[in-house]
Amino acid sequence: MSFLDQLQSVVSQVDGALACSIMGFDGIAVETHQVANAGDLDLASAWVEFASILTQLKTAAEQLRAGVISEVSINTDKVTAVMRPVSPEYFLVLALRPDGNFGKGRYALRIAAPKVRAEL
Amino acid sequence: MSFLDQLQSVVSQVDGALACSIMGFDGIAVETHQVANAGDLDLASAWVEFASILTQLKTAAEQLRAGVISEVSINTDKVTAVMRPVSPEYFLVLALRPDGNFGKGRYALRIAAPKVRAEL
Repeated sequence: MSFLDQLQSVVSQVDGALACSIMGFDGIAVETHQVANAGDLDLASAWVEFASILTQLKTAAEQLRAGVISEVSINTDKVTAVMRPVSPEYFLVLALRPDGNFGKGRYALRIAAPKVRAEL
Repeated sequence: MSFLDQLQSVVSQVDGALACSIMGFDGIAVETHQVANAGDLDLASAWVEFASILTQLKTAAEQLRAGVISEVSINTDKVTAVMRPVSPEYFLVLALRPDGNFGKGRYALRIAAPKVRAEL
């Protein structure tokens, strides 16, 4: 499966999913699948900010002996974002509507991560 | 109920909970309840780092029109942290073992937040 197929598969199986991306920690997306009606969310800008925050979290967790980050989620009143590192350079991120299926989204990313990692 | 009672109530009803705190966004804890066997996690330092990250997230979310942050969770291989702002100055944070009941933890914080807010 291509990266885009993996992302489409994640989005299609999660109720309320808006977009799924493979991103570098430098904030540049490798591949993105976004549904047509994602509204006025500026997802591209959001991903860049979240990549920066994820990088800081990684550093903080390492310094604090809090372990290796496996997942970060950020819920706002407009969007829920779930992020999962797949390699030292890349992570998967899924954006959902706030009423979307958060548990299924986490599960879908966990299943997709090793498949994406294998093809990086 | 005092703050400490609220925190003890959250920790006691969530399997795998390690500690629960009310913290300022300046990283200073107002009140903390921690179980005795929380292991070698340096929770105090972790909270300060996470407060700093939460502050950055708030700013990022506002700038991006991504909405008001309602919850942030960070999962590592050693600890899961769930954070929920209760006012512009304070937030609740719950630390769980990675195999703890994440869903129940999120629920317990959501229920506790308005009670804590009412007493701030």
